[in-house]
Amino acid sequence: MTLVPVAAEKNTKSAVAANKLIVPGFRAAAARAGIKKGQQLDLALITAIRPAAAAGVFTTNRVKAAPVVISRERLRSGRAQALLINSGNANACTGPAGLEAAWESTHWTARYLELPDKLVLPASTGVIGQKLPTERILAALPDLVTRLDPESLSEVAQAIMTTDTFAKTAQVDGYIGNYPITVAGIAKGAGMIHPRMATLLAFILTDAAISPRLLKTYLKAGLGQSFNRISVDGDTSTNDTVIVMASGQTRHQLVDRPDSAAGQAFATLLHQVMADLAVQIVRDGEGAQRCFRVTVEGAVSALEARKAAETVATSPLVKTAITGADANWGRIMAALGRSGARFDPEQVDICFGPHQVVRNGQAVGPAVERAAHELMLTGFFDLTIHLHLGDFSDYYLTCDLTADYVRINAEYRS
Amino acid sequence: MTLVPVAAEKNTKSAVAANKLIVPGFRAAAARAGIKKGQQLDLALITAIRPAAAAGVFTTNRVKAAPVVISRERLRSGRAQALLINSGNANACTGPAGLEAAWESTHWTARYLELPDKLVLPASTGVIGQKLPTERILAALPDLVTRLDPESLSEVAQAIMTTDTFAKTAQVDGYIGNYPITVAGIAKGAGMIHPRMATLLAFILTDAAISPRLLKTYLKAGLGQSFNRISVDGDTSTNDTVIVMASGQTRHQLVDRPDSAAGQAFATLLHQVMADLAVQIVRDGEGAQRCFRVTVEGAVSALEARKAAETVATSPLVKTAITGADANWGRIMAALGRSGARFDPEQVDICFGPHQVVRNGQAVGPAVERAAHELMLTGFFDLTIHLHLGDFSDYYLTCDLTADYVRINAEYRS
Repeated sequence: MTLVPVAAEKNTKSAVAANKLIVPGFRAAAARAGIKKGQQLDLALITAIRPAAAAGVFTTNRVKAAPVVISRERLRSGRAQALLINSGNANACTGPAGLEAAWESTHWTARYLELPDKLVLPASTGVIGQKLPTERILAALPDLVTRLDPESLSEVAQAIMTTDTFAKTAQVDGYIGNYPITVAGIAKGAGMIHPRMATLLAFILTDAAISPRLLKTYLKAGLGQSFNRISVDGDTSTNDTVIVMASGQTRHQLVDRPDSAAGQAFATLLHQVMADLAVQIVRDGEGAQRCFRVTVEGAVSALEARKAAETVATSPLVKTAITGADANWGRIMAALGRSGARFDPEQVDICFGPHQVVRNGQAVGPAVERAAHELMLTGFFDLTIHLHLGDFSDYYLTCDLTADYVRINAEYRS
Repeated sequence: MTLVPVAAEKNTKSAVAANKLIVPGFRAAAARAGIKKGQQLDLALITAIRPAAAAGVFTTNRVKAAPVVISRERLRSGRAQALLINSGNANACTGPAGLEAAWESTHWTARYLELPDKLVLPASTGVIGQKLPTERILAALPDLVTRLDPESLSEVAQAIMTTDTFAKTAQVDGYIGNYPITVAGIAKGAGMIHPRMATLLAFILTDAAISPRLLKTYLKAGLGQSFNRISVDGDTSTNDTVIVMASGQTRHQLVDRPDSAAGQAFATLLHQVMADLAVQIVRDGEGAQRCFRVTVEGAVSALEARKAAETVATSPLVKTAITGADANWGRIMAALGRSGARFDPEQVDICFGPHQVVRNGQAVGPAVERAAHELMLTGFFDLTIHLHLGDFSDYYLTCDLTADYVRINAEYRS
């Protein structure tokens, strides 16, 4: 995962318009259904020309939104042909009525598209605990279906935004054998300006021909270098959803073996898109000014490496130090110390980018701390911690904790 | 633990002066040694007339400050006669020089007091990673010893403050048999305006005659209702220290059996002081506007009850909702869902004080949410969650997360 995403520069509204995402075999449309206040895009539909191989991963939160329950169930078949996505309402914590609303919305979508219900997957993001305004979705559906278009994927990226300050899209092209293939994704981040909004959503499309089983394998394998290694505030949502669909439009031979060259080629592209979207989500973390990667090396076990990186990356005191561009290694040591990872404080090294501020658990001096301060002001940097005790390493990508984060999340519903 | 501490009203500077803490058998003094910038109290000494029974509990952080290492070792004897405490420098992460500094400071204190070194316990709070200015401490010691006085304990409470906005003291009186006894404590909170400050310190003194073994038993037993059930930002420090000393000045028979009436009487008073100080620490959490208790009932196990309460109490999204006085139960559900506690979302009840905003996992309605909003504006309230699955309950006391917290902790060293 590179810190500056491939697509970083093009993610302005005008640039997105200029670089339309197109994945052969898929069409999309977005609409203003009135779920959000004001005239904003809040409903989107993505369809495949025929049933596509599909796989998904969902929130591990015990509280799962209705669309998560339904999509997870429907994806057992490994096939899907449409995604119905809304923002402005998470359709979570509303009891049986929530399941009913998700069922009804996808049922009518299926009717208009002339598909079986089970090939339509719902996804929602927004306010938790309020009834989904199904009637508004149903009213918007006929027009939405009519406007399905291969060039409208970027609009879907806009329709699923909540507090995101830019639409998140990523696309890479490659080959399977001699067949050119495309993998493209859109995502919304863990931004929640409205006090009851949450959720990370990501949808990845490809025209490659990949078996559902393999799609799931590669999707899961990519999480450890993308969506499972980012943290904005440590909170997980009721709606987190990542779905990948493969239309098989390129007509190369079906890829079904994980260790095949074709499979590896596809996995590389998929993981690139996943990592790219994940970086964009952190860059756009609520109120974030700086984005940094915490890498822990030399841990005794993989678990301890992950816990140490996670604890440092989510520590409010470390994050606020970064907000102040302060190379505050004392707080990093203290966070390491409560992470559960074994280490000897007097062997720890800490670097901000190339600037080593701690050697053997002690300050190197004010000059390197000033250099680290300057580095932090650039907005992107690496924080590397070496425990010098074992051979395991891991990392988390995170952002600073600013007064804006508090303001955004404290604003009362209006 | 009551939400409004016994001593809440009297903890203004003038009131502290008016209600001097006095514990028979103890003397104290505070000085301006120049460890902190400006002319602030930053060094304190507490002494017992003769060796007192003593017990301590210390940070569980793997990174331990030098005074923690030394005090823990010296307390193995169950005896202590003096506490040497400084603010402005944590004496942590400074390698062997840190141990040397703590050793030297207490050595000279012992010399002036004509005690063996091992009866003097060091404690520090402040900047991590900077060398303790031992020479300033040594220079201040002779005068400090001369000024030891039974009425100066309140000054010690001021000398150990860092970003605390008020000095934290608590005192209760009671009886063991016909002998009147006093238990008094002072503490500093988890406030850290300087980016490298951390640490909770608490010192509790009594004139009761309690065996060291029993003192330790009662101290540990009280943690679960005081210092182990508070959270300001989830970070733990390198210096956390709670020490209790019993002078035995009252001359009643030594209390040595935990289940004796005398023992229980003492434990009640001790726990009252511990809980009182803990509440004051949360009330004075950095930038805190509101203080609330998260109680989880009906959990399947004691561990799950604790984890659920802890996860809700430390969730940035829950805390910022409270900052906005928003009865944002969706975030509470989401935090519960990632806590690891087992529950069925559709059985959960959530109350803000007497106002039930969630019944069976769903919103009760806007009227009670408005009532909860009004309650939150008062600054102290109970947040009670019932999982309706088992018989275990637990709680955490915490505060909201404000823009002031971020500002305080982001300020660059100057």
